[in-house]
Amino acid sequence: MNGAEVIYATAASAGIEVCFANPGTTEMPFVKAFDDIKGIRPVLGLFEGVCTGAADGYGRIKGTPALTLLHLGPGLANGVANLHNARRARTPIVNIIGDHPTWHVAADPPLTMDIEGLARTFSGWERISGAVSGVSKDTAAAIQSAMGGRIATLIVPHDIQLSAFPAGPLSAPGNPYTSPEDDHIALAAKCLLDGRKTAIILDGRALSRKGLLAASRIRQAVGCDLISVAFPACMERGDNLPILPRIPYYPENASALLCVYDTVILADAHEPVSFFGYPGQKGRFLDETPTHMNLISEGQDVVEALERLAGHLPRASEKERREPGAGSGLPDMRSGMLTPGKFCVAVAHLQPENAIIVDEGTTSTSAYYAVAAGSKPHTYITLTGGAIGMGMPCATGAAIAAPERPVISLQSDGSAMYTLQALWTQARERLNITTLLCANRKYRILQQELKRAGYPGVGEIAQSMTDLGSPPVDWVKVSEGLGVPAVSVNTTEGLVEALNRALAEEGPHLIEMEL
Amino acid sequence: MNGAEVIYATAASAGIEVCFANPGTTEMPFVKAFDDIKGIRPVLGLFEGVCTGAADGYGRIKGTPALTLLHLGPGLANGVANLHNARRARTPIVNIIGDHPTWHVAADPPLTMDIEGLARTFSGWERISGAVSGVSKDTAAAIQSAMGGRIATLIVPHDIQLSAFPAGPLSAPGNPYTSPEDDHIALAAKCLLDGRKTAIILDGRALSRKGLLAASRIRQAVGCDLISVAFPACMERGDNLPILPRIPYYPENASALLCVYDTVILADAHEPVSFFGYPGQKGRFLDETPTHMNLISEGQDVVEALERLAGHLPRASEKERREPGAGSGLPDMRSGMLTPGKFCVAVAHLQPENAIIVDEGTTSTSAYYAVAAGSKPHTYITLTGGAIGMGMPCATGAAIAAPERPVISLQSDGSAMYTLQALWTQARERLNITTLLCANRKYRILQQELKRAGYPGVGEIAQSMTDLGSPPVDWVKVSEGLGVPAVSVNTTEGLVEALNRALAEEGPHLIEMEL
Repeated sequence: MNGAEVIYATAASAGIEVCFANPGTTEMPFVKAFDDIKGIRPVLGLFEGVCTGAADGYGRIKGTPALTLLHLGPGLANGVANLHNARRARTPIVNIIGDHPTWHVAADPPLTMDIEGLARTFSGWERISGAVSGVSKDTAAAIQSAMGGRIATLIVPHDIQLSAFPAGPLSAPGNPYTSPEDDHIALAAKCLLDGRKTAIILDGRALSRKGLLAASRIRQAVGCDLISVAFPACMERGDNLPILPRIPYYPENASALLCVYDTVILADAHEPVSFFGYPGQKGRFLDETPTHMNLISEGQDVVEALERLAGHLPRASEKERREPGAGSGLPDMRSGMLTPGKFCVAVAHLQPENAIIVDEGTTSTSAYYAVAAGSKPHTYITLTGGAIGMGMPCATGAAIAAPERPVISLQSDGSAMYTLQALWTQARERLNITTLLCANRKYRILQQELKRAGYPGVGEIAQSMTDLGSPPVDWVKVSEGLGVPAVSVNTTEGLVEALNRALAEEGPHLIEMEL
Repeated sequence: MNGAEVIYATAASAGIEVCFANPGTTEMPFVKAFDDIKGIRPVLGLFEGVCTGAADGYGRIKGTPALTLLHLGPGLANGVANLHNARRARTPIVNIIGDHPTWHVAADPPLTMDIEGLARTFSGWERISGAVSGVSKDTAAAIQSAMGGRIATLIVPHDIQLSAFPAGPLSAPGNPYTSPEDDHIALAAKCLLDGRKTAIILDGRALSRKGLLAASRIRQAVGCDLISVAFPACMERGDNLPILPRIPYYPENASALLCVYDTVILADAHEPVSFFGYPGQKGRFLDETPTHMNLISEGQDVVEALERLAGHLPRASEKERREPGAGSGLPDMRSGMLTPGKFCVAVAHLQPENAIIVDEGTTSTSAYYAVAAGSKPHTYITLTGGAIGMGMPCATGAAIAAPERPVISLQSDGSAMYTLQALWTQARERLNITTLLCANRKYRILQQELKRAGYPGVGEIAQSMTDLGSPPVDWVKVSEGLGVPAVSVNTTEGLVEALNRALAEEGPHLIEMEL
């Protein structure tokens, strides 16, 4: 086996199944190896941000990493925005980046760039493979790091890809997580039992089914509140899972929610801070909270921590264990011309059981999360890092991870433009994704921010920087041009009919909604 | 004035006229300032790679920088690939990047990233503005650095944008170039006059009209050869300008061209090296050349150097000064089904006088450069850094820089997919750009590279990674969806009719060619 083949073989034997790829000349040995090493399925993206966003969606649903295969520094650079989102989501991803042969880098050929410097801006682990004898070990280390919720980036020079690997066993990744410490769990239990007003803020794997069930037991035992971070990476919803308020986007609302607590326990969540800093507004929301603590340290298993914490507490009775609000039902659908509110209610009604909802609807879907508390059980994914253009690639990866589940991609037009190439991959792979495209022809969030900044009269030119209406993008044409059947609707009735049809048919669809 | 306004005012008084912008919340003071400070025209792009590629095209045509305005690290990251191309082209660009307020960065809000580390991967100059009192000086320093052919990146925290600038004069950039040294010029003259076989390799501003006219005088005086780098940033062609062979892409051909010289003089050109490193092939082409020298040092003016060098040499007679090959005419157009060769000849015939040709046609336009030696005078722009997705944004910026000139964008379908959002900006700004989209539904260059690598039988999966045909992108729908009228042609006759119509009508057009 050569270096490229060994890297795939190591990945495949660690359980990796998919590679989101946009390779170039320096990655040709990796391209060839797709045929020779069984077990790694390549999925082609026509822009690197599609590949990295898809790896993010895949990892969030699967819990295990996909590979990406990207071309040198500039190819990686095109994928950085969605890797940034994945970093914030703590999604496991292993990037494989080709490089010029070691003997040619010093000549500084045109595509040369500081790939490692670039990788450091988002990776939790990065390395340039220095010798073919080390590539299996490098790959295993990358996978282990990724499994712990990091982006790992392995840069492999072309001559190392081509060199023969010396005979010997392949390396395997070790366990990425360690057990939480007893005294930490005991301290959290003490906080929860001291009778003061307490909230647990959940993120990461704490929002998985197991994490939420353990958190629910804790709440039933001691009466604390459970709160989700503002932008959960991947949250299970429905059934008898607890319904969590999310920390609001604007700091005054976030502060209002959090200021009432004496104690806040962070379960795999970072300290909550304002998304942007506004003059005269709070930046950190726990500054005045008497007690706040992390339930786990870096690298520890939050699900184990929550389960052990629940074990420290008195058990609630069967009756008390029923989650408040579960099965509370949905608001009625309202007919007529679509508005963002009507659209959110309609989706919450129609989304099938076990759907994956990827929400990059920005202002248009602000009502959705609260409404969908009454929907059938589903998985909910949001934009964790604020780098728009995550939704359609993320939906693509989620559908590859779970081909048996319907994926609904709630997408705003401004954000969709960044990575619209994802539609082509959805068509090529015949994925069951329905994109609900909210076309308000604006960067509405920026209009809100301009207003919020309180400028005395925003000028015409500034306003024009938030206007996407000239020309209006015809999303039906764009989508069909990229191979995804599409329709445009402007009433609830039209949406219901189009969404039901899209969900019933195989393959991807796009529904443009004029909002 | 606040910090944002001072930055614009400093830029405007240094002659900067345009800002290619895709701002977000942290750049709102800059957005507002577009109305308050006269002289900076914002051009909105719906993806940052469009903005940076447009700034590249603008700078290549204008010779002076445009600003870009991008949103934090992830926004900048989306622009890196085209900034990499611009770095290789030595295009003057000043990036303005917003950041969180200084008091909020330590809270590590979701969009936080190491912006400076990212900027270092492509910038020749980068700085985080530390105080509002310094922003005019920072801006002037950025512009001066950019004017010398570098990418300058100025990162401005939100609170510094908003702070009041203390009264006082604005800073102005100094002269970016120094005069070449006399002994260097004398040494080059000595080399040229010693009777050995000599070539001058030209790049950068040496390929401007003034640079080429001086180089032509040198050739007529001493009989040396003039050669262009493989990927010229911006070359003037036609009239009585010299016709330059380009260094070929593949190393065996490049070596064959260059190995015959005893002496090579580099005029604003880097040492020529292989685009990729192939096992058993040369990486550096001048390793065995007895003498090679740089005509100028970093930061010196190549046009002045060439003119002074010409002055050191005997003057050729008027008759000898006629460039060989000028007015040599064009091959006849061939009718019927289009092929890449027929298409290149047709464009060379039909391109109007003074056209700007942006060539990212990859394999489909490989014949164009040689053929167009007989075309009417025009400017020729290529992909300098190898990061595909440069063509349509670059054409957009070129058209903003020279609204009176027709721009023809020779584009391959694989490359076009990376930054197709540029079409929307072309429509919004009603630019006179005709995109000739070569749709072969393949990454044909990668198919060539796979073949070249000599793998014994490339597998089906590897082949599928180079295939863009399933589904075929319908570029007419995509283009119309983004606001640019489009047609599809498959014969020379169809192309001639469509191209003549597109050139006669105002605004952008796209012609898809099935090749």
